[in-house]
Amino acid sequence: MTENTQILFKSRPTGWVDASHFEVAAGPVGEPGAGEVLVRNIFMSLDPYMRGRMRDQKSYAPGFELGQVLQAGMVGEVVASNDPSLAVGDLVEGRLGWETYSVAQAGAVNRVDGNVASLSHYLGVLGMPSMTAWVGLRNIGQPREGETVYVSAASGAVGQIAGQIAKMHGCHVAGSAGSFEKAAYIMDELGFDAAFNYKEASSLGDALGQACPDGIDVYFENVGGAMLDAVLLKVNPYARIVACGMISQYNLEKPEGVKNLGTMVGNKVKMQGFIVSDHMDLKSEFMAEMSGWLADGKIKYREDITQGLENAPAAFIGMLKGENFGKQVVQIGEAPK
Amino acid sequence: MTENTQILFKSRPTGWVDASHFEVAAGPVGEPGAGEVLVRNIFMSLDPYMRGRMRDQKSYAPGFELGQVLQAGMVGEVVASNDPSLAVGDLVEGRLGWETYSVAQAGAVNRVDGNVASLSHYLGVLGMPSMTAWVGLRNIGQPREGETVYVSAASGAVGQIAGQIAKMHGCHVAGSAGSFEKAAYIMDELGFDAAFNYKEASSLGDALGQACPDGIDVYFENVGGAMLDAVLLKVNPYARIVACGMISQYNLEKPEGVKNLGTMVGNKVKMQGFIVSDHMDLKSEFMAEMSGWLADGKIKYREDITQGLENAPAAFIGMLKGENFGKQVVQIGEAPK
Repeated sequence: MTENTQILFKSRPTGWVDASHFEVAAGPVGEPGAGEVLVRNIFMSLDPYMRGRMRDQKSYAPGFELGQVLQAGMVGEVVASNDPSLAVGDLVEGRLGWETYSVAQAGAVNRVDGNVASLSHYLGVLGMPSMTAWVGLRNIGQPREGETVYVSAASGAVGQIAGQIAKMHGCHVAGSAGSFEKAAYIMDELGFDAAFNYKEASSLGDALGQACPDGIDVYFENVGGAMLDAVLLKVNPYARIVACGMISQYNLEKPEGVKNLGTMVGNKVKMQGFIVSDHMDLKSEFMAEMSGWLADGKIKYREDITQGLENAPAAFIGMLKGENFGKQVVQIGEAPK
Repeated sequence: MTENTQILFKSRPTGWVDASHFEVAAGPVGEPGAGEVLVRNIFMSLDPYMRGRMRDQKSYAPGFELGQVLQAGMVGEVVASNDPSLAVGDLVEGRLGWETYSVAQAGAVNRVDGNVASLSHYLGVLGMPSMTAWVGLRNIGQPREGETVYVSAASGAVGQIAGQIAKMHGCHVAGSAGSFEKAAYIMDELGFDAAFNYKEASSLGDALGQACPDGIDVYFENVGGAMLDAVLLKVNPYARIVACGMISQYNLEKPEGVKNLGTMVGNKVKMQGFIVSDHMDLKSEFMAEMSGWLADGKIKYREDITQGLENAPAAFIGMLKGENFGKQVVQIGEAPK
């Protein structure tokens, strides 16, 4: 416990992220000061929004600083404590560094319960991505029985939850993903009514038309660009577009243009962006509801766990390209037994 | 009163509308059947949404039919009545034909009060365009004191009202229009805080930055395209975009692409389309409030009145190019004294 492997933000990407933007370094393990704890990191979350933090411009999350350790959602174990609120052996989650050990303010991490199927769930189905799906549908999408809900990136961390919640509302639910295997998973395992592999669709419009024969009432938007344009030609009156993310655009130096916004006027469409961290007043309600669904088997959840901190850059790059299948997590250390 | 001049929809435009898409014809004056009236048309409204009715595709208003008389908002005088609810001499407004005399169902027109400054006001400040501004701000924009409201096409029928209502809410109000004369009018006559001529701006972003130094909280969207893109880079957190129309795109065979929608996520922006006819339950509230403001001098209103039905096609084409200065109206017949 004397060496701390860390991954630094080496240079700023303008287009696609590649290995040259990261640097693996060996630093010292920190000493927790007053009010701080030392955390042995176990599971790390990789999420598309992090690409925005690599930009040199205003984003909703503060930008990563060049030469510094990258940050991510993390679950770990307290191995030294200088604060009465946390003891050695406590399990915590918070935003920590891409490193094997992190020093954190005790107040900046939250204790979690080890009695879950996997601690990694706090980064996904019981964490930020799942709450993003839950709050986006609750506050903006507001699906009603019999309506059609379409989810892009539907096998991803947010999409799989969004679709399953929409099914519980009695909706016709369609999804798209980037392989036939993912499309099959969405239907066979998650219970979506329709799914397609957008990469092999000869026309997004035709694929959407088949998957959503009655048009689209709610679009859970994770990708942007050409997919949004195709959806705008299928929207029903009073459709709601939950603008959660636009991953197809994050690595483009110049984003694609969306041409069909004019349909929003005549169809009285609402498109609304949101950030889950604005809604933390709902967190206990979310945790209670999602934990119950999970225990009852009403929600299924797939993770893609990469082993080893040193493989995190490749996993992040792969996730931006859609190579992950399920919520992307990196396992940095052993979970306690 | 035996000849009826009519303007027919001759051919369907794909790009810009020109004179060849219209045909002036002489038809008979109709005979009102049971439950119908004959109206001598006085003032006709020309509005950007009509361009959408010329398309061969689904729009919120039914499409114009080739070879048939075009339709428009109209104020006229009943000259023959076959319904007990209306008498000869009554003044009415409704959606009638581009013609000197129209036969209408008595129930499809509304009696109006001749004691107004001009009957043409029922097509503008006391009619559909003004209620569009009022309801869009009321239901979607929801401006609060101290916020910045930006209005495009700000000297137009809708824009001039939207900006003046926003001023009454205590907002910093900025507007753009297509000439220096219009920009001066917006500030000097309507009391906007800032205005610019978008056609002469070296950069829309710079012009918006100067006009809205604290960013944009509400955008009353009348134009779309490049202007919307520039606004998306200036939006404040929780901004609202009132998607009323996108006139810059109506005559393009392929609309421009809007590249900066990604800012909606991080800034939690809401963009919502609407159609005023969905909100007719609010019409009496609107009429009471707007009539009061007009009587008190709190709302000013500028019209651009073209004389003669035969000049309506040129006036319509000019309006789509922004050549009108104020609400575009065509005077077809004499107003009663």
